[in-house]
Amino acid sequence: MTQILLLQGANMRRLGKRQPALYGSLTKAALDKMMTRHAAGLGLDLDIVYTDIEGEAAEAITSAYDDGVRGLLMNPAGFTYNGYALRDCILDCAEMRYVEVHMTNLARRGSKSVLAEAADGLVMGFGAESYRLGLDALARMLAN
Amino acid sequence: MTQILLLQGANMRRLGKRQPALYGSLTKAALDKMMTRHAAGLGLDLDIVYTDIEGEAAEAITSAYDDGVRGLLMNPAGFTYNGYALRDCILDCAEMRYVEVHMTNLARRGSKSVLAEAADGLVMGFGAESYRLGLDALARMLAN
Amino acid sequence: MTQILLLQGANMRRLGKRQPALYGSLTKAALDKMMTRHAAGLGLDLDIVYTDIEGEAAEAITSAYDDGVRGLLMNPAGFTYNGYALRDCILDCAEMRYVEVHMTNLARRGSKSVLAEAADGLVMGFGAESYRLGLDALARMLAN
Amino acid sequence: MTQILLLQGANMRRLGKRQPALYGSLTKAALDKMMTRHAAGLGLDLDIVYTDIEGEAAEAITSAYDDGVRGLLMNPAGFTYNGYALRDCILDCAEMRYVEVHMTNLARRGSKSVLAEAADGLVMGFGAESYRLGLDALARMLAN
Amino acid sequence: MTQILLLQGANMRRLGKRQPALYGSLTKAALDKMMTRHAAGLGLDLDIVYTDIEGEAAEAITSAYDDGVRGLLMNPAGFTYNGYALRDCILDCAEMRYVEVHMTNLARRGSKSVLAEAADGLVMGFGAESYRLGLDALARMLAN
Amino acid sequence: MTQILLLQGANMRRLGKRQPALYGSLTKAALDKMMTRHAAGLGLDLDIVYTDIEGEAAEAITSAYDDGVRGLLMNPAGFTYNGYALRDCILDCAEMRYVEVHMTNLARRGSKSVLAEAADGLVMGFGAESYRLGLDALARMLAN
Amino acid sequence: MTQILLLQGANMRRLGKRQPALYGSLTKAALDKMMTRHAAGLGLDLDIVYTDIEGEAAEAITSAYDDGVRGLLMNPAGFTYNGYALRDCILDCAEMRYVEVHMTNLARRGSKSVLAEAADGLVMGFGAESYRLGLDALARMLAN
Amino acid sequence: MTQILLLQGANMRRLGKRQPALYGSLTKAALDKMMTRHAAGLGLDLDIVYTDIEGEAAEAITSAYDDGVRGLLMNPAGFTYNGYALRDCILDCAEMRYVEVHMTNLARRGSKSVLAEAADGLVMGFGAESYRLGLDALARMLAN
Amino acid sequence: MTQILLLQGANMRRLGKRQPALYGSLTKAALDKMMTRHAAGLGLDLDIVYTDIEGEAAEAITSAYDDGVRGLLMNPAGFTYNGYALRDCILDCAEMRYVEVHMTNLARRGSKSVLAEAADGLVMGFGAESYRLGLDALARMLAN
Amino acid sequence: MTQILLLQGANMRRLGKRQPALYGSLTKAALDKMMTRHAAGLGLDLDIVYTDIEGEAAEAITSAYDDGVRGLLMNPAGFTYNGYALRDCILDCAEMRYVEVHMTNLARRGSKSVLAEAADGLVMGFGAESYRLGLDALARMLAN
Amino acid sequence: MTQILLLQGANMRRLGKRQPALYGSLTKAALDKMMTRHAAGLGLDLDIVYTDIEGEAAEAITSAYDDGVRGLLMNPAGFTYNGYALRDCILDCAEMRYVEVHMTNLARRGSKSVLAEAADGLVMGFGAESYRLGLDALARMLAN
Amino acid sequence: MTQILLLQGANMRRLGKRQPALYGSLTKAALDKMMTRHAAGLGLDLDIVYTDIEGEAAEAITSAYDDGVRGLLMNPAGFTYNGYALRDCILDCAEMRYVEVHMTNLARRGSKSVLAEAADGLVMGFGAESYRLGLDALARMLAN
Repeated sequence: MTQILLLQGANMRRLGKRQPALYGSLTKAALDKMMTRHAAGLGLDLDIVYTDIEGEAAEAITSAYDDGVRGLLMNPAGFTYNGYALRDCILDCAEMRYVEVHMTNLARRGSKSVLAEAADGLVMGFGAESYRLGLDALARMLAN
Repeated sequence: MTQILLLQGANMRRLGKRQPALYGSLTKAALDKMMTRHAAGLGLDLDIVYTDIEGEAAEAITSAYDDGVRGLLMNPAGFTYNGYALRDCILDCAEMRYVEVHMTNLARRGSKSVLAEAADGLVMGFGAESYRLGLDALARMLAN
Repeated sequence: MTQILLLQGANMRRLGKRQPALYGSLTKAALDKMMTRHAAGLGLDLDIVYTDIEGEAAEAITSAYDDGVRGLLMNPAGFTYNGYALRDCILDCAEMRYVEVHMTNLARRGSKSVLAEAADGLVMGFGAESYRLGLDALARMLAN
Repeated sequence: MTQILLLQGANMRRLGKRQPALYGSLTKAALDKMMTRHAAGLGLDLDIVYTDIEGEAAEAITSAYDDGVRGLLMNPAGFTYNGYALRDCILDCAEMRYVEVHMTNLARRGSKSVLAEAADGLVMGFGAESYRLGLDALARMLAN
Repeated sequence: MTQILLLQGANMRRLGKRQPALYGSLTKAALDKMMTRHAAGLGLDLDIVYTDIEGEAAEAITSAYDDGVRGLLMNPAGFTYNGYALRDCILDCAEMRYVEVHMTNLARRGSKSVLAEAADGLVMGFGAESYRLGLDALARMLAN
Repeated sequence: MTQILLLQGANMRRLGKRQPALYGSLTKAALDKMMTRHAAGLGLDLDIVYTDIEGEAAEAITSAYDDGVRGLLMNPAGFTYNGYALRDCILDCAEMRYVEVHMTNLARRGSKSVLAEAADGLVMGFGAESYRLGLDALARMLAN
Repeated sequence: MTQILLLQGANMRRLGKRQPALYGSLTKAALDKMMTRHAAGLGLDLDIVYTDIEGEAAEAITSAYDDGVRGLLMNPAGFTYNGYALRDCILDCAEMRYVEVHMTNLARRGSKSVLAEAADGLVMGFGAESYRLGLDALARMLAN
Repeated sequence: MTQILLLQGANMRRLGKRQPALYGSLTKAALDKMMTRHAAGLGLDLDIVYTDIEGEAAEAITSAYDDGVRGLLMNPAGFTYNGYALRDCILDCAEMRYVEVHMTNLARRGSKSVLAEAADGLVMGFGAESYRLGLDALARMLAN
Repeated sequence: MTQILLLQGANMRRLGKRQPALYGSLTKAALDKMMTRHAAGLGLDLDIVYTDIEGEAAEAITSAYDDGVRGLLMNPAGFTYNGYALRDCILDCAEMRYVEVHMTNLARRGSKSVLAEAADGLVMGFGAESYRLGLDALARMLAN
Repeated sequence: MTQILLLQGANMRRLGKRQPALYGSLTKAALDKMMTRHAAGLGLDLDIVYTDIEGEAAEAITSAYDDGVRGLLMNPAGFTYNGYALRDCILDCAEMRYVEVHMTNLARRGSKSVLAEAADGLVMGFGAESYRLGLDALARMLAN
Repeated sequence: MTQILLLQGANMRRLGKRQPALYGSLTKAALDKMMTRHAAGLGLDLDIVYTDIEGEAAEAITSAYDDGVRGLLMNPAGFTYNGYALRDCILDCAEMRYVEVHMTNLARRGSKSVLAEAADGLVMGFGAESYRLGLDALARMLAN
Repeated sequence: MTQILLLQGANMRRLGKRQPALYGSLTKAALDKMMTRHAAGLGLDLDIVYTDIEGEAAEAITSAYDDGVRGLLMNPAGFTYNGYALRDCILDCAEMRYVEVHMTNLARRGSKSVLAEAADGLVMGFGAESYRLGLDALARMLAN
């Protein structure tokens, strides 16, 4: 069964409690369940990691990569603005396919992701739906 | 049956013939067929318009909007860089949901879309698959 | 009778239907009637052209100019941001007096017109009244 | 009878003597007379103040405002470039309608007004006529 | 008894009447009384000066300084944006301790003070309380 | 008793040992004692956390917030330059009052805090005194 | 016989009537005749297209390209400032040789062409002679 | 006898007391005496005006100009950074020769004068000697 | 024996596995052995620390410094772009000599190190050799 | 016979040996011969000067100009980036016609020439052919 | 007798022949004579050097400095824009007094001197008179 | 024996006499001797060239290159800021290995080298030691 790492960046631990007008009221637990189920439907095995520490995110990614994982779905969240080290880390994992997701449309918030240039593709603006679409995209990429 | 306008911006007419390394070898005809079928599967009726003229794109959008269409899927393509008038046109259609798609990842090309701030969500970097994912996203939005 | 060209730029076709909070509820038809009447009161004959295509706007202006029209009242609207070709077109018509009008105050919206440097004068921020004041200004200019 | 404050900013005292190629040969006295008459025709009572000192301009505006004046016609002139304190002063007078006028078209001179964002509307480029058109606009605003 | 100059910059004269949502409803008179009392409690003698004219502010500061005053509490208000001459004036008074206060948090308003580099310390964002805290800070500085 | 979180950002652990010309010779231990005492005098219970890791700071804040703490006093120190994720974290804690303190005047050092826009108020430039004044401010805010 | 497309961009229709001090008094008709003759002398068959609409220019280019034309001589004129879609269109026609000409020296006018990076070579500043030199250059390129 | 206006800008009143390391210990009184004598030696009659208020400086200049004075020697001092209105005022006095002096070398301080473009010539960096050299230069200009 | 801290920043853990075209195929283990040997040859005792977390790097540095270590050799790697807190940490250790090394030439990659201003010297572009040269330089510095 | 100066800027001495992928394999000697012959065919006498020193280039130009030469063909090459003094030198030779040539298309290399504003016309991107076309252009200019 | 080096930068050799509207018709020979005489009147011995080559200017300065010359009067002319190496050279001659002169007012030409920060003082805008005033200033400096 | 060119850029002739606080008191002669000896120890033959003229530096490099020299050690010194032509010259010598050295740490001086992108590696900040380390690095490069 294909392994996928779903990485949730800084401040995602409190989903549902943080700024619901922006991020919706779906909780972390509900999102995790929704994504695990969606992955199973796609024949994927999802490992979900939350961290507020950029270096820990890098370690989770490279550790998965060294274990053979080739698909990364990540919402960099708080790492979006300055995660240059994380971007380099992804570039280091040359065979990893990386799909970046954001719940909100960054362009509407006058913001941009420094990790985006390391991504194969991006999905943003659809709330929790961004994760599902991103996983669909990743699954099809890995299937090719 | 829910109507959707799929608008293909400047230079998309020649898909398959233009820079295949960047945009793939799928032709315009094949893409249109693929999307029409995908739309049908989602219970959507797709109207596909290609134009190289920004003003014509605006007219297609507002005409559809005045006819009751509430979903717009667009690859602004050549309008990406400067389409401020088109952006205003979309903002004018206040109840239109707009999903923007790009075949390539703009961030990798050092480019950005001036229309993105008018979008509800964006999907980019997945080649022709971007259209399918974008339509999925739009369908779910309109269903809510 | 002195001929005046009133040119309405991109997205003005839908006046009254577009963002009423910004542009008011006066319709295109009502504005046209109001301006035709106001022009008549000033002894002017008004030709009104709407277009979403910058090149058509240029053609309308130069065609009028070659027919002897020497007064241009224009709301560049969607052409405001990037209408450099249109600006050059107006500069080419050396004896044309050009008054630019905007319904809203661009400075409040953090925007500016690239056509303004080709204008003899500008009136902005007064809603539909901007057109009337602009025509008054143009009439007095042409009378001198 | 409705009171209006006409405020003339830095360097306007010498109108007619200053750079006539730019500002025309109409003198301060002639302009004052012209505007007083024009105001009377509109049923307005015009108080005209000239000052080269930004703080005095602010005091004239707030003093008028506290006395009930709700219409301000101003050519900021020398205050155009840096009059941030004056801009705040106008914003403080929340019910004051402010029409900004300039004799020349600032866009042609590569300049812009920092006060413009506090204005309800602007008229510029018509020489002394800018004042008359600005007062017309203000009169109609206050009438609504 | 230690003398302190409390200088209120441009547009502070109308405190309570200006934008209450931003600056609160405390009037100038009430603030003066509050600060005089607070100063007395700290064993300080407060001289309060309001001015809208930057040059007058400079004169008040240097005149106090030449009279031996060594503590300046100032809300530059309207001078915040461009008060370079006032900044130089404070730098000229080498032994003057200067505490700058703002009722609002400038960072939230996308603004910054050009006088801040001449300040010993800053207090901002606490409404009228900013003055009390600023005076506390100044008193302790002068006591050392 | 009201709980307050005092968070000391990157490099504060070595207070007294780091650049004494800039930050003074007061040690971390002495500062902690001083603040605990000052808090007690204000009827507040102070929890002091030092960390060099931005993600840990975020966790300390959200954990306190979820435990009901509504007052945050923070010297972001080394997080000042780039702490965007921490800024978002504070914005996520919508009912938390946040007072930012700096021992030095950032404006004199040509630096600025990216967290400042998330603060209710700022106090800077008074050395260790900045903390005491900041806590006074926070206490009064929470009392209202 | 080798086919060449000579494309004249926005505002070129009125050559001879537009700003003669800048562009000379040679008319469109005279230029067309001169170039047709010059092409014939070089053994080339010249198709001349004028358009003010960027999308039409793109269509003329791709249509010619699909018909086997491999040489493009273009004065982008009014498209010079913002013709990014047109630039992409030329890049899409990978085997097309493109020589860009301008009658004036853009560097003297503080302007630059966004299309230039898609050009094989540029000739500018020689008035109508720029076209002849450009065609000479294109002919030699195609001969190699 | 030729009249010259020597205008001393913001903060010059306290010469000798302000930052002696930068501006020297020569007092205002001594400088005035030195310059009056130097002027007399050149057959010039010097009127010396000090002001901290930019609008008063403008009034002193235009009033002198209207009285026939055609030579202005000015150290804009605190007006150096933002004196755009004063610059316009000098430009308005078309026949006035203006020599700008600074005691320090602005380039060493990373600063520049917005008035310099209105000057016929500049002398800076020589302390009080800058005034003498500036007056020599002005005298020779007026003699031609 | 003189102690030296060799600190390897973010993403260095996987040396040999990360982008070999850029960083070579030498593994982390081999580099560690090479450097330990080289240090011994110079009479130095090398403590090697790898971390992906900026705050941990700061703690390693200050902890070594407090233990008497006065030589730091560091490849900031992923901290290069934004390590302002780490830069401050090094500046805090006033007697620490810091030599910065990079395997690649940052200038060729259009990048620069924000830590460089805290370094005594830099060596970059020589692959693993950069470390040896950097240690040579550090040894000589400490010997003086 | 009309004299022309052909000036070859910094690094052109080694043509044929320098970066052949960019500049081709034609040697300096071959280019000189080709151009001398081409000049003869146009009835021109060509003086060819190579120099790596900007000041020598200026001296060659002014010396030729003082000897009556009125045509300059130059590839500024290494002087392209910063040759402001050379630009002034050409402007000083008011009656000299200057045609600038580059073998490559600067726009493709993200570069621009600071000398271009002093040129009558430019030809670039055609390799050695740029020289021939440039001389043709210069010959026609001088003939008028 | 005090030695002074008068250095004339790039393009000054042709004074009188270069752009007389800007630099006047005084020839190099006449200027040299005028300055030699003026120096003699001040008891100074003037060595005049002209060069178009920045490195030669540096050599002339350091050679004079090593010979004991302590006064430098220079019009950097063509070196004004980019003469960073020359600026460093002057800074290297720590006891040299440097007065920079320009015949025109650089501020009016939108230009600035990169050497100015190395100057003790500047005189500009007075044509040939700038040299005389500059030498007066230098003489007085050296006399102190 | 392998030949190496050691090139010393602008202002290095006076080493030991120029700004000793920055560059140390080691003289040019002593440095030359030290480096010749060090080169001999590495089995290298060092040719040392000093020049203040950028074009001469380019000639020295290309002449050595054409003679078979493949190692360049250079301190660009005064050419650091603007030596674009020299950078191109080094790029032209495709097989030359170039090590750039600076005595000081440019990053501390807020400066950067435009030549660095042409370097294989850089060593800076170690005073005269930078040369020795740079030569070590170059020797090892050439040995591979």
